[in-house]
Amino acid sequence: MSLVALLYGKDRPGLVAEVSSWILQHSGNIIHADQHCDLQAGIFFQRVVWDCSIENKPEIGKNFGLFAKNTLDMNVKVYDTNNPLRVAVMVSKTDHCFHDLVLRFKSGELVGNLVSVISNHPNLEKISSQYKLPYYFIPINSESKKEAESKLIRHLSSNRIDLLVLARYMQILSSNFLEDWGKSVINIHHSFLPAFVGSKPYHQAYQRGVKIIGATAHYVTKELDAGPIIQQDVTRINHRHSIDDLICRGKDLEKIVLSKAVKWHLEHRILTYNNKTVVFE
Amino acid sequence: MSLVALLYGKDRPGLVAEVSSWILQHSGNIIHADQHCDLQAGIFFQRVVWDCSIENKPEIGKNFGLFAKNTLDMNVKVYDTNNPLRVAVMVSKTDHCFHDLVLRFKSGELVGNLVSVISNHPNLEKISSQYKLPYYFIPINSESKKEAESKLIRHLSSNRIDLLVLARYMQILSSNFLEDWGKSVINIHHSFLPAFVGSKPYHQAYQRGVKIIGATAHYVTKELDAGPIIQQDVTRINHRHSIDDLICRGKDLEKIVLSKAVKWHLEHRILTYNNKTVVFE
Amino acid sequence: MSLVALLYGKDRPGLVAEVSSWILQHSGNIIHADQHCDLQAGIFFQRVVWDCSIENKPEIGKNFGLFAKNTLDMNVKVYDTNNPLRVAVMVSKTDHCFHDLVLRFKSGELVGNLVSVISNHPNLEKISSQYKLPYYFIPINSESKKEAESKLIRHLSSNRIDLLVLARYMQILSSNFLEDWGKSVINIHHSFLPAFVGSKPYHQAYQRGVKIIGATAHYVTKELDAGPIIQQDVTRINHRHSIDDLICRGKDLEKIVLSKAVKWHLEHRILTYNNKTVVFE
Amino acid sequence: MSLVALLYGKDRPGLVAEVSSWILQHSGNIIHADQHCDLQAGIFFQRVVWDCSIENKPEIGKNFGLFAKNTLDMNVKVYDTNNPLRVAVMVSKTDHCFHDLVLRFKSGELVGNLVSVISNHPNLEKISSQYKLPYYFIPINSESKKEAESKLIRHLSSNRIDLLVLARYMQILSSNFLEDWGKSVINIHHSFLPAFVGSKPYHQAYQRGVKIIGATAHYVTKELDAGPIIQQDVTRINHRHSIDDLICRGKDLEKIVLSKAVKWHLEHRILTYNNKTVVFE
Repeated sequence: MSLVALLYGKDRPGLVAEVSSWILQHSGNIIHADQHCDLQAGIFFQRVVWDCSIENKPEIGKNFGLFAKNTLDMNVKVYDTNNPLRVAVMVSKTDHCFHDLVLRFKSGELVGNLVSVISNHPNLEKISSQYKLPYYFIPINSESKKEAESKLIRHLSSNRIDLLVLARYMQILSSNFLEDWGKSVINIHHSFLPAFVGSKPYHQAYQRGVKIIGATAHYVTKELDAGPIIQQDVTRINHRHSIDDLICRGKDLEKIVLSKAVKWHLEHRILTYNNKTVVFE
Repeated sequence: MSLVALLYGKDRPGLVAEVSSWILQHSGNIIHADQHCDLQAGIFFQRVVWDCSIENKPEIGKNFGLFAKNTLDMNVKVYDTNNPLRVAVMVSKTDHCFHDLVLRFKSGELVGNLVSVISNHPNLEKISSQYKLPYYFIPINSESKKEAESKLIRHLSSNRIDLLVLARYMQILSSNFLEDWGKSVINIHHSFLPAFVGSKPYHQAYQRGVKIIGATAHYVTKELDAGPIIQQDVTRINHRHSIDDLICRGKDLEKIVLSKAVKWHLEHRILTYNNKTVVFE
Repeated sequence: MSLVALLYGKDRPGLVAEVSSWILQHSGNIIHADQHCDLQAGIFFQRVVWDCSIENKPEIGKNFGLFAKNTLDMNVKVYDTNNPLRVAVMVSKTDHCFHDLVLRFKSGELVGNLVSVISNHPNLEKISSQYKLPYYFIPINSESKKEAESKLIRHLSSNRIDLLVLARYMQILSSNFLEDWGKSVINIHHSFLPAFVGSKPYHQAYQRGVKIIGATAHYVTKELDAGPIIQQDVTRINHRHSIDDLICRGKDLEKIVLSKAVKWHLEHRILTYNNKTVVFE
Repeated sequence: MSLVALLYGKDRPGLVAEVSSWILQHSGNIIHADQHCDLQAGIFFQRVVWDCSIENKPEIGKNFGLFAKNTLDMNVKVYDTNNPLRVAVMVSKTDHCFHDLVLRFKSGELVGNLVSVISNHPNLEKISSQYKLPYYFIPINSESKKEAESKLIRHLSSNRIDLLVLARYMQILSSNFLEDWGKSVINIHHSFLPAFVGSKPYHQAYQRGVKIIGATAHYVTKELDAGPIIQQDVTRINHRHSIDDLICRGKDLEKIVLSKAVKWHLEHRILTYNNKTVVFE
């Protein structure tokens, strides 16, 4: 029942005082406030969460946005925690991240509306229906890609999806798609980026003989596996582990890293700039 | 060249705005500000760092203290980063934490004046003199304890010590000493507290068959190994590790955990309440 | 399609040579062999895995057991990987470890027969039936405990259960039950044992102000939370985390720690002695 | 007072039995034995440690080598723990790994003879002399490189150095040098390889916005930062950390990773093949 604002812009003295004073003067009670200043880049970032009376919440959110933009010269987004984001999950055949995300939505750990499951394969349709989740099957191959992505955009738009989560979806979304859709896409890459970009990262890791493997959740951008990193985690391996062992151990990393990134996005904790993220945990 | 304030007290709306406005009005430029509210206990905590012109810095620090105390009803301490804390290290025979701390002071990683080394054994006197550190040898046994602690207090007072670091010092400081001296004492305990309180924690851990060992830095209070925890870290072990292996692996934990706790204390990042710590990293 | 032997006993020169020679002479091909010697206790431990022709596998297993017992004076158990263990899971109302275990059995990561789900509450019956798992509801209170445990033993016996997994089951199994049933019970305790034994460990951890929380999987013995530790893991927390945050973060630890312990047990990787475990990873 | 053999070669049934039988027949008492089979590559690896009577130890070591080579067709090296390796450390100006290694040699944690310190700068000469370590200053620039490396080889040879440790030495050793000298060189690279090869890896990591940084100890080969990885470790960072913070936090990683790699090498725990390592911890 709160408002959450994410803002960033050129740093100058007094910003914290101005933001908190505005909220105080508009009968708000700040629950959390966290700020960061990138001293090198001279950019100020803030996440502020406050309670206000229910009747005029939309108006206050709008006014705060205007204040932050016009008076403080900040980029700003304001969210009402009464309106959780609408989410679609894309999968292929692999199901561990899929199960993990669905169960976290169902338990209430992930606060958002999981609206649909989208796949280029029919494999997970049955289990989706058991979870009572609509399943949208869009086959895709090199020739049908353009058409398939058009369908995808229509589906996302008509379902008013705010966030697309690639839960081990094994196709690359085209630059055109990303540009046309224009909203956030989170991917899980099964390596410790920037090591082992591209396909078969566990095979690459085995080949290189690393002693630690990792997983990386990042926002998808036009350049493959090069978008802003949201979260990473690692686990130790040794010479006894086969590629299959790496794949098996990696699954737990992927689940934890992806779900954490989705959670932070749904709770409006992430700002991106210079192809990096600020995460207000 | 900054002022650092640590404050805490009863939470109420507007505290962040009032603090930042006061600093702004007194020509200060906030470099960092971090706050926390323990919602359960209703307590507000803040660490704020700001620059101000050099000539009137002492006065501004004093005035901020009065403002925080009288107007905001907060407990407050204000530090001038030009006046680093004065530190004494207590050791017995074991030297790994000793070398580690000294080298971190010398490299500038720990910002403070390492004034003296105090020990109940003569063993580390020679190496201290190589480091050009005064060594104060106070033998201690059950009969001489009271007298030894009196000497210790006189030494600490005459050297204007602000912080006493027990770097694997193997004696227990009495309640009387702690009360009489009244300043901060940081200890490193070689277990993951509250597991394995007291002596020979690695032996206890080996006996219990744990799969992970740890180290804990805490403020010393009258109850043994029960003071506010500042930092902890752990490392994985297995059935192949002997007690000697645990001791060897634990050394690296102890060094890292103790030095981090000392660093945070010297940078005025720690508040204590309810026998716990708030660490503004 | 292999035989796995776990053996331990008084160490003496030549044991490795004798075991490997015996297997070689009986047309076996050793796939893995791992041994450990507790030098302090003078005990030798070995896990050896070998292939042999299918027709006479049971006989070879039996003969190896006799050889290890009579010639080498070892405690020994021999398993045929064609006969996976039969498992029952006990739950109360909390479901995260339950889902996690079931999905790992279904994916083939856990190699065993998940035969039944047993609970003192009806809550997870519906989801169990969706997983096509029989659900055995045994209500229990202080008066009915003895009778309920008798029912439980009959159920376990008639279903030929080899391993009972307590997946956040909130009742304490009595010493009588443990003695009467006599097989392995694995429990997940939501703290870093031996810290925070008993109920509400996350509340205890919050109260003590630790900087790291953990989870522990252990074999159940008569003394509460004091059985041989199989696996532990930890995660870092700070002053910003509420008890609810600890509970939420702990869930991921509990899932990973419990599933790893069950996996190792099912793969016959664990030996216990002196209330500790040797785990041949 | 033991012999240590490291062997590897084509896997076939019976190798473990043959090795252990040979040692038993030659009055040896196996203290430790660990083996590994890379099933994909079909290669068997073993490290075996055994006691034997002192008078004929050299002969037994030699005979075991002949047996392993001629009878088992293995690559083999046999070491006598009475003859610790002779080590030289190369440094530039940065001293944290230098202090760390020296103190670990002095405390007995690293079992080897630290014979000399070699540097392309005079900066650490004074502290070396305090440690009573000979300091060999070899200035180097693009024109003098060939000559400097010749001097280096003469120094290493005349001091019978077995292992060269690059403790943040900031010059690249040429392929010619590596070939001519022919012995092991261990380097610490301050990133999680293969991410951020080359110079200024912390700057690269900051730029990329990773959430975890690492350090890697590896054997030096002709290709820069691409040799067999011995050990890696990581630590979590966030958006608040500046490049200086990464450098400071990285120092602890570098010390721990490098010292562990050197320790394993000195204890003859490492085998290399296919540009990877098998580490018998």
